[in-house]
Amino acid sequence: MTYTDLDKTESYAKLKVLAGEFAGKETFQKLDAERVAEYSAPMACGLTYNYAAKKLNGAVIDALEALAREIDAVGKYKLILDGEIMNTGENRKVLHHLARGRLGKEVFFENKNIGDFYKKELERFSTFASAVREGKINPGAGKKFTTAVQIGIGGSDLGPRALYIALENWARKEGKAKITAKFISNVDPDDAAAVLSSIDLTTSLFVLVSKSGTTQETLANELFVKDKLKKAGLDPAKHIVAVTSETSPLAHNPAYLDSFYIDDFIGGRYSASSAVGGVILSLAFGPETFAGILAGSHEADKTALEPSIRKNPALLDALTGVWERNFLNYPYTAILPYSQALSRFPAHLQQLDMESNGKCVNRFGNRLSYATGPVIFGEPGTNGQHSFYQLLHQGTDITPVQFIGFKESQLNDDVNVDGSNSQTKLKANLAAQIVAFAKGKQDSNPNKNFEGGRPSSIIYGKRLTPETLGALLAHYENKVMFQGFIWNLNSFDQEGVQLGKILTKKVLAGGGDLDGALDAYSKILGVK
Amino acid sequence: MTYTDLDKTESYAKLKVLAGEFAGKETFQKLDAERVAEYSAPMACGLTYNYAAKKLNGAVIDALEALAREIDAVGKYKLILDGEIMNTGENRKVLHHLARGRLGKEVFFENKNIGDFYKKELERFSTFASAVREGKINPGAGKKFTTAVQIGIGGSDLGPRALYIALENWARKEGKAKITAKFISNVDPDDAAAVLSSIDLTTSLFVLVSKSGTTQETLANELFVKDKLKKAGLDPAKHIVAVTSETSPLAHNPAYLDSFYIDDFIGGRYSASSAVGGVILSLAFGPETFAGILAGSHEADKTALEPSIRKNPALLDALTGVWERNFLNYPYTAILPYSQALSRFPAHLQQLDMESNGKCVNRFGNRLSYATGPVIFGEPGTNGQHSFYQLLHQGTDITPVQFIGFKESQLNDDVNVDGSNSQTKLKANLAAQIVAFAKGKQDSNPNKNFEGGRPSSIIYGKRLTPETLGALLAHYENKVMFQGFIWNLNSFDQEGVQLGKILTKKVLAGGGDLDGALDAYSKILGVK
Repeated sequence: MTYTDLDKTESYAKLKVLAGEFAGKETFQKLDAERVAEYSAPMACGLTYNYAAKKLNGAVIDALEALAREIDAVGKYKLILDGEIMNTGENRKVLHHLARGRLGKEVFFENKNIGDFYKKELERFSTFASAVREGKINPGAGKKFTTAVQIGIGGSDLGPRALYIALENWARKEGKAKITAKFISNVDPDDAAAVLSSIDLTTSLFVLVSKSGTTQETLANELFVKDKLKKAGLDPAKHIVAVTSETSPLAHNPAYLDSFYIDDFIGGRYSASSAVGGVILSLAFGPETFAGILAGSHEADKTALEPSIRKNPALLDALTGVWERNFLNYPYTAILPYSQALSRFPAHLQQLDMESNGKCVNRFGNRLSYATGPVIFGEPGTNGQHSFYQLLHQGTDITPVQFIGFKESQLNDDVNVDGSNSQTKLKANLAAQIVAFAKGKQDSNPNKNFEGGRPSSIIYGKRLTPETLGALLAHYENKVMFQGFIWNLNSFDQEGVQLGKILTKKVLAGGGDLDGALDAYSKILGVK
Repeated sequence: MTYTDLDKTESYAKLKVLAGEFAGKETFQKLDAERVAEYSAPMACGLTYNYAAKKLNGAVIDALEALAREIDAVGKYKLILDGEIMNTGENRKVLHHLARGRLGKEVFFENKNIGDFYKKELERFSTFASAVREGKINPGAGKKFTTAVQIGIGGSDLGPRALYIALENWARKEGKAKITAKFISNVDPDDAAAVLSSIDLTTSLFVLVSKSGTTQETLANELFVKDKLKKAGLDPAKHIVAVTSETSPLAHNPAYLDSFYIDDFIGGRYSASSAVGGVILSLAFGPETFAGILAGSHEADKTALEPSIRKNPALLDALTGVWERNFLNYPYTAILPYSQALSRFPAHLQQLDMESNGKCVNRFGNRLSYATGPVIFGEPGTNGQHSFYQLLHQGTDITPVQFIGFKESQLNDDVNVDGSNSQTKLKANLAAQIVAFAKGKQDSNPNKNFEGGRPSSIIYGKRLTPETLGALLAHYENKVMFQGFIWNLNSFDQEGVQLGKILTKKVLAGGGDLDGALDAYSKILGVK
C-alpha cells in the first residue's frame, strides 16, 4: 500500500482545474426533481444519502472517484478490517469495526483472538445488564437498580450520551426503558454534585469508564461518588462497575461489582460500539437494543466496502467534504439533525471529526501544506432556524450543511394545527431549507436578498431506531476514516491533547519551575 | 453620525499594514507574568477580561482604539441608549439595555414611556412569580405549582434556558430553587411529548412565549400542551401564562391565566432581560434573583460607555474579534467556559452573534466586500479538552478562543484527590490550556510538536452568581453590538430566516406551484 499526500496525487491537479472552471451557481439553478432523484445513494438500514444540493456535477464526482481509486481508500479500509497497524502514531490496530462484526481476516494480538474477546465482553455485559434489569443483580434491601450513571469524559461520555438521548423516547415507546441513565463528565465539581443530588443513591449503579484507568477527571469523580455512597451508608463495591482495559489499575479489582474490558485498539471517540457505550445502553434499554445499534453499524460498515462512490455514501460524503474543504475552501461544516432526539449527536460528531482529523502532519510526521479537518458544529432543527441560520443564509462565508431527517417521529404522539401535524411541519421546514440554501431568492431589497449557492446534503430515513442510529454512527465514523486516508494523516491518535495534560500536572505540582505566564494565570485564577 | 464601511475607514489601511508587519509569534514568546498583568481590564461585577494571550501589541491596540474613535463606536451605542432608530432594517429602536435600567434619555414611542412600560411589566411579573412561589396563585385542589415549562423557540428558548442552567446549582445552594423549569422548543413532536411525560401536569405552569403570537413551532406546541391538559381534566386557562407583544393575538386573552408584555424594540436574541427570560427565571429562582441578573447586565452596560478601549472590555473584545476576522483572517471563534453551569451558554452566544452579524450587506443595503460575523461554537471545559481541542491545538487552521472561568464552584461540594480538589484541577487545566495554545512546545517527534501561536482571552471572576451572569450576558451583547458598528451592518434584524419560513408555508399549503426541487424533497421526506 502506498501513502501519498493529497497535493501529490494526480487527481489533486485535476480537481484544482475543475474547481476553477466549476460554475457552482448553474448546478443550483439546475436543481430539479430529476437531479434530486439522480444524486441519491442508498445507505444501510433503509437510510438514503441525497447530495443533489451539493456543488457537484458528473465531472467532479468522476474526478473524486478517481482520487478514491488513486489512493485506494477502500483498500486502506480493508487493511483496518484485517487488523493492520493503521494507528501508526501509537503503533496500534484500529478495531472498532470488529466490535460490531467481522468483515476482514481474523485478528490476533499476542495470540489472543480480538474478535472473540470483543464478543465475549459483549456477552458478559449483556448478561449483566439483563440481570440488573430483571432485578437479579440488585443493591439489596429488596430494591432494584433504577438509575445508571456513567462516569467518563470525552469518548466515554459524548458518544454514549448522544446515543442514549437519541433512543430515550424510542425506548419509552417500545417499552424498553427500564433504567434511567445519567452522565457525569466534567471535573467541575458542580457537575457531579448536581447529578448526585438528582438521584436516589440507594438504587443507583455507577458505570466508571476509563480505558487507562488514569483519567484525571474520571478518577476525581469516582472519589466524589464513593464519598457520597459511603456517607449514605452504602458499599461502593456494590454500586460501581468498571469499564477499562485489562492492564489498568481498575481491572480485576474487588472494589467494583463487576468489570468489563476494552483494549487499545478502539479509540475513545470510536468506542460507543464497545463496552464503553454498551454497558450503559444495555442497562438503560436492554442488550437487544444495543445489539440493534451494532447491527446497524455493521451494515453501514459493509456498505463502506463498495468501490463505486455512488454506492458508497460514507466515501462519497468524505470526498465531498474534501472537495469543499480543499478545492472550494470552506473551513467549516454544520450538521443539522431535524430530530430532537439527535440534539447531542452533533457534539459527538464534533469530537469524532475534529479530534480525528484536526492534524497538521501526515502519517509520516511531515507538515502538510493543505487544510485538513474542518470545524464541525450543529444544533437540531427547527431550533437552529431561529438562531444561527441567519449566518448560514446571508453570512459572508459559505457553510456547507448536512441535514438529517426522518419521516416519522419516535413517540408518534402528535397534534394537528392548521391542517398539518408537527412532524409534517418539521419535514416541510427541512425541505424548504435545502431549497432556500441552494436557490436563494432575488429581492429588490438587498437586505431580503438571498444569494443561494449554499450547498447541503441530507441523510434521511423512516424513523430513528437502534438500527438506523447505528448506521448513522458508522456512516460518520467511516466518513472521517476515509477523509483521514485522503489527507494522508493518522485519524486514530490525539497527541494534540497531551501538552495541556502535562502543563496541568505542572500547575498542580506547584513547583517553582513554572513558566512565568503559567504561574501568572494560575495565580489570577486562584489555583494557589 | 456617519456610517462608513470598515474597508473605507482610515484605520483599515493602517491595520492592514500592521497585520502584514506583525510578528505574532514574538508576542507569544514574550507572554510572561508582566504581560499577563498588563493586558487586563476590569469588567462589571468583579469580573476581569485578560487578553495577554491574544495576538496583540501596543501598536495594534492603539490602531484598534483609533478605529473605535473613527467610527464613534461609543457614540453609536449612546444613540441606541437614547432610543434612536438603530434597527434600520425594521425601522425600530433597540432597547434591551433599557430593560435593565436607563443610561440615556427617556425613550418614548407613540407617547408611551418605554422605560416605564418595561418597569411596570417587570413589577407585574415579579409580583406574579412571588405569588406563584408562595402558593397564592396555584392550580387549585390545595396544590402548588412545582414546575414551570417555557414554550418558545430561538431567543425565547436559548437565552432563558442557558441562564436557567447557569443558576440552577447556585439557586439550590442559596435556597432559591423553588420551581423546576423545563423547556419545549422544537416543532419535532418528540420534544414536547418527552417533556410532558416527565412532569406532573396538575402542578405545572406553562409560559407561552411568542412576541408576534404567530410563531409556527410555538403555536403547535401550545396546542399540543392544551390538548394534554384537557385530556388530564385540567383547564388550560389556569395553567398557561403568555409573554407576548400587546398587539399579538395572544394578548389580553382570557385563554391565559395572565399575560406579560414585551415590544418590538427588544429582539428575540436580546430578550433574556425582558419578560421572555424574566417570567421563567423569576418563577424558578425568585424575582430578586432575576433582579440580580439585570443589575449585573446594567453594570456591564455602563462599562461599555467607557471611551478608552483598555477600560471597555466589550469594545476591546469586539475590536479584537474584528482584528482576528478581517486582518488575521480567522473564520471562527470558540467560546469555552470552564464551568458546567455554562454548558448551554455557547449555544446562546451562537445565536446572539451569528444571527446578529451573519450579514453580507451594510446598513444601507450595499454588499460588503469584507468578512463579517464568524462561526461561534463551544462546549464546557474540561470536556472539550477530551474532544475537539485536538483540532484547536494541532489543526491546520487557527481558531481564536475565549475562555471563561471562576475561582469558586457554585455548590462548594468538592472532593480532594491527589492533593487538590476538583475546582482546583478545573482551574489548573484552564491556566494550562491558555499557555499551551499560546506557546506550544517543540518536540522532535513532529506528531507531538505544538506550534503554538494560537490566541485566547479569558474572562474570569470569583463565582458564577446572578450578577456575574448578567454581566457576562451583557458583555457579549455589547461586544456583538460594537462589532455590528465596526462592520457597518444592522445587528438587530434577521431577514435571513424569512425565506425558509415562506417556502415552508408553500410546502404545507401543498399547491401545484411548488418548485420542482421543493416538491421532490417534500416527497422523499414524506411530507405528502
